[in-house]
Amino acid sequence: MQGSAFRELPHVVILGGGFAGLYAVRALKNAPLRITLIDRRNHHLFQPLLYQVATAALAAPDIAEPIRKVFRRQRNVTVLLAEATSIDLQNRRVLLADGEVTYDRLVVATGSTHAYFGQDEWSRHAPGLKSIEDAFEIRRRVLSAFEAAEREDDPGEQRVWLTFVVVGAGPTGVELAGALREIAQRTLARDFRNFDPRETRVILIEGADRVLPPFPKELSRKARMLLEKRGVEVRTSRVVTGVDGEGVSIGDERIQARTVLWAAGVRASSLAKSLGVALDEQGRVLVKPDLSVPGHPEVFVVGDLAAVKQDGGWVPGMAPAAIQEGRHAALNIRRSIEGKPCLPFQYRDRGMLATIGRSSAVAAIGPFRFSGFLAWTLWLVVHIVWLIGFRNRLVVLFEWTWAYLTFQRSARVILDRPLGGPETLSPPTDAPSRRAADRPRLAKTEESDSDNG
Amino acid sequence: MQGSAFRELPHVVILGGGFAGLYAVRALKNAPLRITLIDRRNHHLFQPLLYQVATAALAAPDIAEPIRKVFRRQRNVTVLLAEATSIDLQNRRVLLADGEVTYDRLVVATGSTHAYFGQDEWSRHAPGLKSIEDAFEIRRRVLSAFEAAEREDDPGEQRVWLTFVVVGAGPTGVELAGALREIAQRTLARDFRNFDPRETRVILIEGADRVLPPFPKELSRKARMLLEKRGVEVRTSRVVTGVDGEGVSIGDERIQARTVLWAAGVRASSLAKSLGVALDEQGRVLVKPDLSVPGHPEVFVVGDLAAVKQDGGWVPGMAPAAIQEGRHAALNIRRSIEGKPCLPFQYRDRGMLATIGRSSAVAAIGPFRFSGFLAWTLWLVVHIVWLIGFRNRLVVLFEWTWAYLTFQRSARVILDRPLGGPETLSPPTDAPSRRAADRPRLAKTEESDSDNG
Repeated sequence: MQGSAFRELPHVVILGGGFAGLYAVRALKNAPLRITLIDRRNHHLFQPLLYQVATAALAAPDIAEPIRKVFRRQRNVTVLLAEATSIDLQNRRVLLADGEVTYDRLVVATGSTHAYFGQDEWSRHAPGLKSIEDAFEIRRRVLSAFEAAEREDDPGEQRVWLTFVVVGAGPTGVELAGALREIAQRTLARDFRNFDPRETRVILIEGADRVLPPFPKELSRKARMLLEKRGVEVRTSRVVTGVDGEGVSIGDERIQARTVLWAAGVRASSLAKSLGVALDEQGRVLVKPDLSVPGHPEVFVVGDLAAVKQDGGWVPGMAPAAIQEGRHAALNIRRSIEGKPCLPFQYRDRGMLATIGRSSAVAAIGPFRFSGFLAWTLWLVVHIVWLIGFRNRLVVLFEWTWAYLTFQRSARVILDRPLGGPETLSPPTDAPSRRAADRPRLAKTEESDSDNG
Repeated sequence: MQGSAFRELPHVVILGGGFAGLYAVRALKNAPLRITLIDRRNHHLFQPLLYQVATAALAAPDIAEPIRKVFRRQRNVTVLLAEATSIDLQNRRVLLADGEVTYDRLVVATGSTHAYFGQDEWSRHAPGLKSIEDAFEIRRRVLSAFEAAEREDDPGEQRVWLTFVVVGAGPTGVELAGALREIAQRTLARDFRNFDPRETRVILIEGADRVLPPFPKELSRKARMLLEKRGVEVRTSRVVTGVDGEGVSIGDERIQARTVLWAAGVRASSLAKSLGVALDEQGRVLVKPDLSVPGHPEVFVVGDLAAVKQDGGWVPGMAPAAIQEGRHAALNIRRSIEGKPCLPFQYRDRGMLATIGRSSAVAAIGPFRFSGFLAWTLWLVVHIVWLIGFRNRLVVLFEWTWAYLTFQRSARVILDRPLGGPETLSPPTDAPSRRAADRPRLAKTEESDSDNG
């Protein structure tokens, strides 16, 4: 489909279609380059709104745009659905799960995944939130817990089904906790006959001494106040020491809960290791100021995979930083091909935003700090503007307006569990129950088939 | 949550929240009854638009409404997420996978599933379309086939990836085939660099001598013409004799294709067998004219699970019939509780509609037959009106308008394969290929890891 002159152009390979990779490719529009963008998924995921898919407020397609569609008019780009397994810096090639590809310039932007403080077995009981499938799994667990509570007559067991624990109080943890209370308080208020959803407990646990640790202290205080006003139980300076199918341990303390969500700790993509260069303790590549890999000026690492030092601190692992780094790597590729020297990256802090829920958010923009309705409006506008795809912006705007007016959430669909996930949650069946004669009765089985089996 | 007087009311159990079950419950609004609606899924699925989820035109939540939400204001209903495994007519109880429930009146509306002419092993290679997960699987296969074609350099192999076979030319098969050609012709037209999606072949195979067999003959002819105009290859009077990972056999003829979709043959839900009454050859319950089970006036069977004789023929297994039957069972329950005799069911044929795609449909309403834009408009209106949930109507209307103007489909998200499905489709890796030096190359492996392995 592309001419032979095109085939002679320098080949730029970009690994990962997240914020960093996507904006790197965009910034190379019209450049005399052959670009190959490789991702193992067919879609760019708008991570900042993924928690809304998990909490049934949005459908997956609203925040997942096919990468191929994003670049259908940028003719110097080929998009490939493939999984990169390692990078061979010496021979300038990327090994794929089912092939290989060589490059003249490489941008590695494969991001991060969640980490469980080295306790990988916790993942079974406390799903994290990185992919659409993760979001569906969290949605399934949350909605299924209310379904199980409806079928349970033992008040103690019912309480365990109606206790939700969120580990980690960064923006995602705060947003999840706020949304869970909203679901219980508003969305499901009329839906059950055997319990009152408003009795649902949501407990947010954070190891640091405040919620939203990267934010200014006064906003952390404000966010905590807003969470507590909504009924979220906030516990800071508490480190989780155990997670199983029946709850969470924090040292000597035990919280009985059948739904635990993980929003603490990330680990860089394992592709970083194959580079054979120095990594930080999170597995991120310690890049040079121009974002290249030490000793390999033709290879750039950007986004969550890069550890970028600046003014004595680290550039935060957030979408705005990833976008800026992606664009900067593109600039340096253009310059290097024109024979110009690469420029050092300069992060510009555009501010920080986190929402607690309906009409409630905190914001730090330059010297300004604000919270409440104004911050929430700002949060809405920023997320609509940065969402990829005009149709998605319209639909999300509609969904938010609808949800604001009706208190409903439109994506309350429980899907079957995806391959490789932990077993199906089901109501515990060994608990004694008080039962009416023809209320549906749960069978007694010898062993519980709940998640702790 | 409900008082003790309520607990003394007659208990009506309804199995299945499809069209028949849902409209039965609705028709019992304000009746002095205690109703329990049981479904193994938490959502009512608007089946007539499921093919649009499969072909990436709609998101799942647009056509899946939580049953619990539908009835949140109908206070005489309790909704339970549970799986009915058998019915004990003697003791008036339903056995669940994890318990049991007794009834005074029972409505069985658990529908049908797809059947493979007794060749269950075909299901692995040719997914049918009954659930959201089925739709995701079809979407995944269709979109992944185009992705594999982009990575394939051998023109022969590319052709096999770009050949789609739909087995069965009822409304669903016709709709799927039409949508596949539209995706190839319009939606993906600019998206690939290594092949032209417009070369995609779509072959529709039907055992009967015409497409849309239940429709008037002149509309079958018209539908075939409309399909062929769009580039669908239609083969009637042809019975599939084999399906595997490499294609379809029709007697001596062989069609090489890596994506086969199943829209032929249904089998009634296995719950029918546990009743111990006479079934027809599709496993449906031969009900009495009042829709009750012979010998059990307190049990009604409705929807796809019921074989209802009328005027010498059978009432068709379509949504309008299911809705009418559900409502009629509700009427007879009200009457029997008031001590009045049950009335025989009278099916009113409201007409038939099927769409071939953009601006193209066929309709038979009473004595009128029409096709083209007018029939298509009618199809749109009818489906919007009958869709459950006001928000869903607005969103689907928006999606259709958007798709009409842009030729795009908004739900092009490939999800990981759900539990229990066949293995991952992957590009065949043993075919010789012509390759440019730094085009991504597929690794050679000893055995093909394609679906026929």
